[in-house]
Amino acid sequence: MKSRAAIAWEAGKPLEIAEIDVEGPKAGEVMVQIKATSVCHTDAFTLSGADPEGNFPAVLGHEGAGVVQEVGEGVTSLKPGDHVIPLYTAECGQCKFCLSGKTNLCSSVRATQGKGVMPDGTSRFSKDGQSLHHYMGCSTFSEYTVLPEVSLAKVSPEAPLDKICLLGCGVTTGIGAVMNTAKVEPGATVAVFGLGAIGLAVIQGAQMAKASRIIAIDVNPDKFDLARQFGATEFVNPKDYSDPIQQVIVDLTDGGVDYSFECIGNVNVMRSALECCHKGWGESIIIGVAGAGEEISTRPFQLVTGRVWKGSAFGGVKGRSELPGYVDDYMNGKLKIDEFVTQDMAFEEINEAFELLHAGKSIRTVLHY
Amino acid sequence: MKSRAAIAWEAGKPLEIAEIDVEGPKAGEVMVQIKATSVCHTDAFTLSGADPEGNFPAVLGHEGAGVVQEVGEGVTSLKPGDHVIPLYTAECGQCKFCLSGKTNLCSSVRATQGKGVMPDGTSRFSKDGQSLHHYMGCSTFSEYTVLPEVSLAKVSPEAPLDKICLLGCGVTTGIGAVMNTAKVEPGATVAVFGLGAIGLAVIQGAQMAKASRIIAIDVNPDKFDLARQFGATEFVNPKDYSDPIQQVIVDLTDGGVDYSFECIGNVNVMRSALECCHKGWGESIIIGVAGAGEEISTRPFQLVTGRVWKGSAFGGVKGRSELPGYVDDYMNGKLKIDEFVTQDMAFEEINEAFELLHAGKSIRTVLHY
Repeated sequence: MKSRAAIAWEAGKPLEIAEIDVEGPKAGEVMVQIKATSVCHTDAFTLSGADPEGNFPAVLGHEGAGVVQEVGEGVTSLKPGDHVIPLYTAECGQCKFCLSGKTNLCSSVRATQGKGVMPDGTSRFSKDGQSLHHYMGCSTFSEYTVLPEVSLAKVSPEAPLDKICLLGCGVTTGIGAVMNTAKVEPGATVAVFGLGAIGLAVIQGAQMAKASRIIAIDVNPDKFDLARQFGATEFVNPKDYSDPIQQVIVDLTDGGVDYSFECIGNVNVMRSALECCHKGWGESIIIGVAGAGEEISTRPFQLVTGRVWKGSAFGGVKGRSELPGYVDDYMNGKLKIDEFVTQDMAFEEINEAFELLHAGKSIRTVLHY
Repeated sequence: MKSRAAIAWEAGKPLEIAEIDVEGPKAGEVMVQIKATSVCHTDAFTLSGADPEGNFPAVLGHEGAGVVQEVGEGVTSLKPGDHVIPLYTAECGQCKFCLSGKTNLCSSVRATQGKGVMPDGTSRFSKDGQSLHHYMGCSTFSEYTVLPEVSLAKVSPEAPLDKICLLGCGVTTGIGAVMNTAKVEPGATVAVFGLGAIGLAVIQGAQMAKASRIIAIDVNPDKFDLARQFGATEFVNPKDYSDPIQQVIVDLTDGGVDYSFECIGNVNVMRSALECCHKGWGESIIIGVAGAGEEISTRPFQLVTGRVWKGSAFGGVKGRSELPGYVDDYMNGKLKIDEFVTQDMAFEEINEAFELLHAGKSIRTVLHY
């Protein structure tokens, strides 16, 4: 099968739009025709070369939506024509993690996914005979891609794929971090560091959770308008203050917030986010992905006096179980997605989408195949 | 009122046993005759000069038990003859913290307590006219001491004061960290770093919580016997391994423990304790007090992949509400305290008790007035 794709040949170089070869699905695998994909900071992070686990050459992309084209032997939960969202966090329902009831971090395909190959250790992608790596188990930057069955959430065919593709990463991650990881309760105070797609989704989640105060924090005040649309009630630009931002938030909130969320990937901000939490009960959730080898630090007294430091991956959401409900919530008007889409482009303009992301000029650019 | 006391005149010097003057209780205060006190690492930490908030000269001591001698104006919950345990974590029942239902960190007397004075800003202790500081709101190293009413837990008069004095800090802290902070569930796996009084109390708590595996970790294997008596099921001396201790524990437990507890105050061990927790759900509780200015650090990936970093002060226990129940549990044979007492001495031998603690030769020395 020939497929349009964007190839990341090496770190730091633009993607090449080219026709690649995609093998059909093997046992337990599914071929999907991606209809829309977006570009996330994690794609940019890997493409930059800063990701120590990045494999090249590769077909990147992990935030997409499409239609099942063909299923491999033994696949029972999906059939051609089903609408699906690729999952970089699989859900097998049978591993120690899935059975624990405590985490969404399924281990079924983790080892091979990290190496950029399918569970059998091989790739389905090649270009002129040269094998190309898969990426995060998704590779949505190819019109036709192959995924394990456990890495696909079947969703309502009524939902527009060029919107719900955003549930493949950022929107779900932010809302899930509020609902599953922090379990924000009505009346709680919340601080959100970083107003990209994930930060805005956290704000939306906090509003859905009926937080009483939602403080949006960013050094780029251009983001405040959109944050307000999602439900933020206060806006803080750290550049407007000489005090450390944690002190500013503590002063604003009579001792600190109940919950804070780091949505940037900056280890210094992660510390600020922890330390702006209220003594005795404040919880800080790390969502952003830090650079290779970077470390967080604080005085242990911060924890001994009752603050809690957590993290969240894909918002703690079990994709196959929970994403169909997220899609339904969107269709029922309970969940905003359209507002995240700042640009729509043809797939071939993907390098421009990366540039807009780097320039802080887009929240999400949706690429249409 | 004249009182036998041990005075800490300055950092790094032995205590001086001397007769001091103790003023009677003012409004809202209570004078207590301490019958027994123990020496805790926190006393040693402050006496060493490493505690940046240490005030000198002072009457140290915070783990004791005694009998109410006299009550000040307005005191309604206590009367002379009541048996009490002094609390370095007060419980007023009325502040934002007490009312939150989320923490035991009452703020009612915190500011003045940290400065080594009573809530009215003055001291009740003096020696030849020179004022001496209070310590942690308790100062159990004086036979007669004065505390705020909110800093005293009234307990059963049947209980031996020279045993339940240990509920004033170490024993309660360890058990509370298991029950209140971690909320260890039956079947869980637990790692305990450091087998002093707090570590042993954590082990006891883990056994009470029906943990399936309780791994006791210390570089001093002499502690393992006692750990076994409290319920530890496995024993690890990090010196026996070339791998980092977190890797040793991960290997022993098929991916890590459900809960770990740092009971030393060593920031490197705090990191190991976090990183030996199971991906997806492991929680690490910091109990030990680190040196001034020391910081904990780790890669944020540790948290993003589901580990949780917490701390615990006085085991999350609300002293006035909960300590009476701890005392009753001891009297009913549900809680071991006697086994923590490795030495009994006269109060005047207090400097020797400090030496035994430093040498690792005592778990708790109980000093009798």
